[in-house]
Amino acid sequence: VSPVSSPEPGGHRLLRDVGEDALIASIVRRFGPQPAALLVGPGDDAAVLDVPGRLVVSTDTVVEGVDFRRGWSSGADVGVKVAAQNLADVAAMGARPLALVVSLTAPPDLPVAWADALAEGLDDECRRVGAAVAGGDVSQGRDIVITGTALGVLEAPAVLRSGARSGNVVALAGTTGASAAGLALLSAARSPAAAGDLTAAASVLVRAHLAPRPPYPAGPDAARAGATALIDTSDGLLRDAGRIAAASGVRIDLDGLALAPGADLVAAAEALGDRSLATGWVLTGGEDHALLACFPPDVALPPTYRRIGVARAGAGVLVDGHPWIGADGWHHFTA
Amino acid sequence: VSPVSSPEPGGHRLLRDVGEDALIASIVRRFGPQPAALLVGPGDDAAVLDVPGRLVVSTDTVVEGVDFRRGWSSGADVGVKVAAQNLADVAAMGARPLALVVSLTAPPDLPVAWADALAEGLDDECRRVGAAVAGGDVSQGRDIVITGTALGVLEAPAVLRSGARSGNVVALAGTTGASAAGLALLSAARSPAAAGDLTAAASVLVRAHLAPRPPYPAGPDAARAGATALIDTSDGLLRDAGRIAAASGVRIDLDGLALAPGADLVAAAEALGDRSLATGWVLTGGEDHALLACFPPDVALPPTYRRIGVARAGAGVLVDGHPWIGADGWHHFTA
Repeated sequence: VSPVSSPEPGGHRLLRDVGEDALIASIVRRFGPQPAALLVGPGDDAAVLDVPGRLVVSTDTVVEGVDFRRGWSSGADVGVKVAAQNLADVAAMGARPLALVVSLTAPPDLPVAWADALAEGLDDECRRVGAAVAGGDVSQGRDIVITGTALGVLEAPAVLRSGARSGNVVALAGTTGASAAGLALLSAARSPAAAGDLTAAASVLVRAHLAPRPPYPAGPDAARAGATALIDTSDGLLRDAGRIAAASGVRIDLDGLALAPGADLVAAAEALGDRSLATGWVLTGGEDHALLACFPPDVALPPTYRRIGVARAGAGVLVDGHPWIGADGWHHFTA
Repeated sequence: VSPVSSPEPGGHRLLRDVGEDALIASIVRRFGPQPAALLVGPGDDAAVLDVPGRLVVSTDTVVEGVDFRRGWSSGADVGVKVAAQNLADVAAMGARPLALVVSLTAPPDLPVAWADALAEGLDDECRRVGAAVAGGDVSQGRDIVITGTALGVLEAPAVLRSGARSGNVVALAGTTGASAAGLALLSAARSPAAAGDLTAAASVLVRAHLAPRPPYPAGPDAARAGATALIDTSDGLLRDAGRIAAASGVRIDLDGLALAPGADLVAAAEALGDRSLATGWVLTGGEDHALLACFPPDVALPPTYRRIGVARAGAGVLVDGHPWIGADGWHHFTA
């Protein structure tokens, strides 16, 4: 072992020091072996994929200062986040994620190590679900803007938002609220150093905010089981349930007991001095990328899902029979 | 006809005035009918495509202030440009473009009309080649950053950059230099108003810069004819030929006579006071998205191509037997 610590990958070079070709080569070196379906990966004009059926594609962007802060998130965290929110959209169609392409816009003074870590986070999260980073692009701009585009294949009919019917069971794979709780803890800590003093349970919530790990296999699980509607909870459970309700022409009645916050969320809310925060996180917190599905009443729920409510004739979303009073998630471009 | 002119699409509202859902609805309204292969278009978590074979995917980004200026380019121009540079990458694999997904990051004070015009430009250019805008995403940021991801299908083996062999014919579909000439004319005009005084021929060059129209069908033409290497000229003919030479392990000898600038470029160069500029535009000007291919010597060139040189044993790119002295295109992140 060297008596001095070896430099981190990418060292202290800045993007403006290395040029585009060296930056791309540095990024591509972070990726593991290509899966067989990726016939041509990074390095040519486009990637080539062997697609055995119907393809799903989705795109989503994160912007520094809006969706993440470099003081809070490592490059790897942001890579996981970009991959997760794109791959979750593919899973939310009932598809199996296959590949991700990524465009990075960044200022010239970005450390290469940050871009390398970003690539590692992207690759790591793709590999969790058997997908691959198939290509990408780098551009220069004032702010870091990262766009992912995920591709997936359907092995059963696509599950849209519009197929829920009155009498359907409403079910959730994964949990909601952890990302919002983690953000609240980070915000209260004010500085990364103070965030370092969090309890282990609180740190898990912070990780859930910085680098979400969605339950991807629950997407194809729902499609195979005959789900009638499916969405991922990117903007909060109530808001995303409302999207299914609006697209399907049903009312969604959620069961407050099934959505009672876990001990981790209650402890975090108490640490912040307001126990009632926990229920708000569960119902309106975004960026968990849990999967919310509707199933016909005679379907046995896949083991990745638990029942949280029922669809009825009507419109909107109720919790224990009443509208929820409070913010309903994140609105871009509005105050 | 109303005695007062009706407001342009989107009127004078700003993004911050309308909210994300209304913005997306406004954009999606700009798109024409869905082609049959687009089974699910914008509005759900992801698009669904019917893909009859091998898929090609590529992504590319434009940034305001780096790749375009709002004073020079309309929203529609930028839409055409984003679509063109992405679809050209798909064609440069020998594939037929099928779909485009687009992520728009923009400041809150962007006029909705600009985003609407962007959508119209994207849709218009996609339709030229039978493709469709299949989905997208909007985010908030300080600068306009637009990422396109294009998908295409291969009906013959993919044509990479690496298959050229000594003795191959080097051929070009489309022309090079018009975009660089248009940029030079715009830069010399200093103001959009002055650019309005350009001659008709000069205006055609300016249009070629602002809204390039690549020869997409020449991509599948090359694949069907058995091309050994293919690339689009996004960074200049010499630099992109150099990429084929490097990937294939050959030298590319270009024929200066076959690349003599046309009367339009010569007139533009003379108007700028330096006739020699024209040859530089042809050899090193970027963003034309012409298609540069290599073919075995016994192949009849598709009618979309004309011979401009030959591949030989060796390395690098020569023009009439000599290295070209001068800038070789656009380098991101370097001075």
